[in-house]
Amino acid sequence: MKPSVYIGIDLGGTSIKMGLVDQLGNILHTLESPTPVKAGYHQILAVFSQMAEQLFRKSQYEWKDIIGVGAGVPAFLDQQKGIVVEAVNLGWDHVPLKADLERMWMVPIMVDNDANAAALGEMWSGAGKGASHLICLTLGTGIGGGVIINGNIYHGANGCAGEVGHITVKPQGGRRCNCGRKGCLETETSATAIVSDALEQVKGMSTGPLKDEYDRTGTVSAKSVVQLAQQGDSICLEIITKVGCILGNTLAQMCYLLNPEVIVIGGGVAHAGKILFDPLTKAFNKAILPRVAENTSIVPAKLGNLAGLTGAAWLIHRKYTLNKP
Amino acid sequence: MKPSVYIGIDLGGTSIKMGLVDQLGNILHTLESPTPVKAGYHQILAVFSQMAEQLFRKSQYEWKDIIGVGAGVPAFLDQQKGIVVEAVNLGWDHVPLKADLERMWMVPIMVDNDANAAALGEMWSGAGKGASHLICLTLGTGIGGGVIINGNIYHGANGCAGEVGHITVKPQGGRRCNCGRKGCLETETSATAIVSDALEQVKGMSTGPLKDEYDRTGTVSAKSVVQLAQQGDSICLEIITKVGCILGNTLAQMCYLLNPEVIVIGGGVAHAGKILFDPLTKAFNKAILPRVAENTSIVPAKLGNLAGLTGAAWLIHRKYTLNKP
Repeated sequence: MKPSVYIGIDLGGTSIKMGLVDQLGNILHTLESPTPVKAGYHQILAVFSQMAEQLFRKSQYEWKDIIGVGAGVPAFLDQQKGIVVEAVNLGWDHVPLKADLERMWMVPIMVDNDANAAALGEMWSGAGKGASHLICLTLGTGIGGGVIINGNIYHGANGCAGEVGHITVKPQGGRRCNCGRKGCLETETSATAIVSDALEQVKGMSTGPLKDEYDRTGTVSAKSVVQLAQQGDSICLEIITKVGCILGNTLAQMCYLLNPEVIVIGGGVAHAGKILFDPLTKAFNKAILPRVAENTSIVPAKLGNLAGLTGAAWLIHRKYTLNKP
Repeated sequence: MKPSVYIGIDLGGTSIKMGLVDQLGNILHTLESPTPVKAGYHQILAVFSQMAEQLFRKSQYEWKDIIGVGAGVPAFLDQQKGIVVEAVNLGWDHVPLKADLERMWMVPIMVDNDANAAALGEMWSGAGKGASHLICLTLGTGIGGGVIINGNIYHGANGCAGEVGHITVKPQGGRRCNCGRKGCLETETSATAIVSDALEQVKGMSTGPLKDEYDRTGTVSAKSVVQLAQQGDSICLEIITKVGCILGNTLAQMCYLLNPEVIVIGGGVAHAGKILFDPLTKAFNKAILPRVAENTSIVPAKLGNLAGLTGAAWLIHRKYTLNKP
């Protein structure tokens, strides 16, 4: 007899990732499928259903082996009620996702936002394994954050804890953010920020690989900037160094308040590795009292883009396995 | 028969406050006595003992009515073990306070740092009553902070959570802090900061009440600056307004991470009232996304200098009454 498992879903604006996760947080099988954003809510539920069937065919598992399904959603949620209050990228407004999935699948469902799910995934079986107090930042197009306190995600007064993308990090001369303010963490250190920095630099270039990419495509990608920096391109290296400095300093300020055991940095930008983490750590150490950071480590995420579905599965793991109802 | 009660102690560098606290967090009797810092640790324990006897004589309570004693200490602690790791103002270094008091009094003892005790007091029966997620700042000579999550103090990885006095709030042009950095929350918004600001202003004055105080005493007090500001003195008002702006902006950054229900502002500086809270609130609202703050209120502390002993008593209340062992 197979041991029972969880299904984790990471719903993104571009793709849906779904996986079978065992009771230790190991991923057994995964699938990915484009998100039919324009087709709307019910079509996305239909895709969920098809993907689950595919997973079962692929794995020999079936619904009777599933303890429950967790889903991470790029949205503001009422996590208790399982309602997606607002998901701008999906066009959802007050959608009873938990109730609808429970009706569709007849198993327990838990939902949380995508950044919180990623943080829980890294805590369960990733870079934060074994820690009880974590901050997890996901540096992608935007910046997601999750705060874990005493081994569980902390939501705050109305589910906004960890929404660190709009912390002001450059009050003077920062870029305008679509939140209406200037110099947010997101406008200065996300992949989008790296692209903006690079585009400003490209203007002054007459030649070079970044300029070539720009001439060919009309833009540059954060990935190219990171790769060129890793190959020693001084302009790209300066861009990544600046991002690292801002991040390190901002993380220090967070540590005074939260004194976490681990800070996990994930998302595309974290793939820069050493060229990001070296200046980050240097700026962090400069800004923090040694005593406050003596039990804190800053580490790159381990689960990559599977952190979200792993953490989504953890929501069920905690409720139905750790704290059996 | 009298219902059982707690003893709360707030040990400061200048005075010791001790009180009897009932099971609802009401203070029944209090005493205050100078702290014999120079006479050392054992003399302070002896004063504790004398004060407890005095409290009993004053109140008709006796040791058999006491569930336990909580103590707030201006120190870094190992809260679990009840060891005061370092109390600079008292000259204590790795002192087993909990064990020593348990031996002396034969009742359960709990210890925590003074800022955490103040936060717990305000949560229990002060300005944060009824809230589960709080940040409490005490603006005095320095700045103390306490973070309450799910109705209990949050200590972090090594007891440093809430040590917000060294958050950098003025990276350019801030005052040098004795932590070695510049522009800490403490150097810009504490009572000490207000005095420094006022002393800078006094230099350029030829007359006025602040100048008179300076000529008479060789310095000015934060209390005078606050009082003059309240009376409409424009220079003093500007000093308090600046402090409010910095605090409001800094609290907004904390809210992105923690999304608290209540932020309680206590300590001497908070007595400024409206002239502090108006610019503070304005700066806060400017820096925060409305959604993140929609369930957050910023309020002045209610328990004054009795918050610490009340919260110290709560440590026993939680452990021996709420969660009966």
